Amino acid sequence: MTRAFELAALGPARGVNPRVGCVVLDAGGRVIAEGHHRGAGTAHAEVDALSHLPAGAAHGATAVVTLEPCNHTGRTGPCAEALIAAGVARVVYAVDDPGRTSGGGAERLRAAGVEVVAGFRREEGEIFLDDWLVTARLGRPLITVKWASTLDGRVAAADGSSRWITGPIARADVHSRRASVDAIGVGTGTVLADDPALTARDGDALADRQPIPVVFGRTAIPSGARVRSHPRGFLTSPGNSLVGEFVALHSRGIRTLLIEGGPRFASAVIATGLVDEYHVYLAPTILGGPRTAIIDIGATTIADGLRLDVRETLALGPDLLLIAAPKGRH
Amino acid sequence: MTRAFELAALGPARGVNPRVGCVVLDAGGRVIAEGHHRGAGTAHAEVDALSHLPAGAAHGATAVVTLEPCNHTGRTGPCAEALIAAGVARVVYAVDDPGRTSGGGAERLRAAGVEVVAGFRREEGEIFLDDWLVTARLGRPLITVKWASTLDGRVAAADGSSRWITGPIARADVHSRRASVDAIGVGTGTVLADDPALTARDGDALADRQPIPVVFGRTAIPSGARVRSHPRGFLTSPGNSLVGEFVALHSRGIRTLLIEGGPRFASAVIATGLVDEYHVYLAPTILGGPRTAIIDIGATTIADGLRLDVRETLALGPDLLLIAAPKGRH
Repeated sequence: MTRAFELAALGPARGVNPRVGCVVLDAGGRVIAEGHHRGAGTAHAEVDALSHLPAGAAHGATAVVTLEPCNHTGRTGPCAEALIAAGVARVVYAVDDPGRTSGGGAERLRAAGVEVVAGFRREEGEIFLDDWLVTARLGRPLITVKWASTLDGRVAAADGSSRWITGPIARADVHSRRASVDAIGVGTGTVLADDPALTARDGDALADRQPIPVVFGRTAIPSGARVRSHPRGFLTSPGNSLVGEFVALHSRGIRTLLIEGGPRFASAVIATGLVDEYHVYLAPTILGGPRTAIIDIGATTIADGLRLDVRETLALGPDLLLIAAPKGRH
Repeated sequence: MTRAFELAALGPARGVNPRVGCVVLDAGGRVIAEGHHRGAGTAHAEVDALSHLPAGAAHGATAVVTLEPCNHTGRTGPCAEALIAAGVARVVYAVDDPGRTSGGGAERLRAAGVEVVAGFRREEGEIFLDDWLVTARLGRPLITVKWASTLDGRVAAADGSSRWITGPIARADVHSRRASVDAIGVGTGTVLADDPALTARDGDALADRQPIPVVFGRTAIPSGARVRSHPRGFLTSPGNSLVGEFVALHSRGIRTLLIEGGPRFASAVIATGLVDEYHVYLAPTILGGPRTAIIDIGATTIADGLRLDVRETLALGPDLLLIAAPKGRH
């Protein structure tokens, strides 16, 4: 299994598919083949390993895999079937496949008379798969909502001016967090009003890793909008059925989504109840006026308020960053 | 002077007038009389000391006083005149009287041929007089605006429900801070909407020291309002000319005023530019809706925002307290 994890780590870290490694041992316990997954559309680890063996060589062998062999036909055939066809006698794997369509491989193998050892070194496997596993279980990306407001909750002055509420250290923090997510979501209102570049910058330079922008809403994006020049291009999503749209983004390999507003869109995302984390930057300023960071999340009474646990409070120059999660969520 | 400070400390700490002590020495440097001020309407320290001497005994004497002898006729006559009349040859004092009407005593004494040593151990005197001196120089109370809001700046839900946004530790902190101020200011809107008791409580009991409530606004206070049962009674103030009203409260001996809202009144106070400190309690809750802690402070552009320095960030159970002051103010 140690070698299987090593092989898994050779795969692409941020792809749609999980990183999986596989080692095939003969009846005497000798390694006769190794394989790993190289990204969407390529062979899964088990099939990759078997492909290195002559026909019949895996008969009676043991396959050690980091993730439960899949049971569905995607761009490649189901691994469970390939293992059965190869005559493998025993499969040892670490982590159950949480996928709603891909799961069930262990059951299929057992039904075919293959001995299955599930959950061997499961914890290491789960740590290795990290947010792929979490989001596969959720069936959607991990969603963070971020805003930067004054102490009284305003994101702009009455005339719409908003640059800059927070200071340079807080803004640099935003950029470094952008570089760590797969996608940034904004509403079309923000694209029209603020024309953000939605890049992750490191000082004046672009960060090495860029999130892909996702613009939610059905208003046309102007031809000159800066998001059109984003190094990763951009996606659009209608924004009227957010839960399904988040699932769709997940199936495109987006496992972490940072929602950056504006107020109307952020409020709509919060109202779905799917937000995993909040990043609230607070500037020590009082502004008043109509432009609040959050507009309406559907709460009518105080009991409807969304209770959070503050996980971290960071001082960023004169500003504060509060990182919070829905109360009681782990 | 050490003895004069000791005598001063015998006076009432929270009265309208400063605590002042006075020692009279004869030409040989022997103490022949001591005095201190016992509160508004009673003799000032110098007059108190002189009252212990037979006529003529202070001729050629030195008066050591913690504060510059006053030069105005209030409920008692001016001390400068009393010292001149008694034939005192020399006056040594620590702190200049900052009062606009009471100051000028040193000048009056000098004009009458009395030798004056001003500013002797001034720093100790200033520390001793503390907020009396600060507010005497300002001519108004020190003003703190406090609010408790959600992370998105709401003080109540859309239906008006607001109990409790913050938790018990934050609420206990509010009560202990109430007990340390001279007065709590609220708008009539808050009295009508929330009917607050405006007492400082220590658990279920009343705190030993109670601030006096000041209700700003011209709407009648209902006969059953809880503020009418406040152990210190309550004051009213029209609320339409706040700067002058703060000066008037100061002249009634209110040196520290805690503004507790509601949003409209707090915003009006902030707009005066006279707020010395902000106490912002933030609950880790998102609420949305129309009821913001601050409504309008007259800022139209982002540059009009009131910039603060955060002095302290305190965790109070799940809540945060930010203590801030206008940027650059000491």
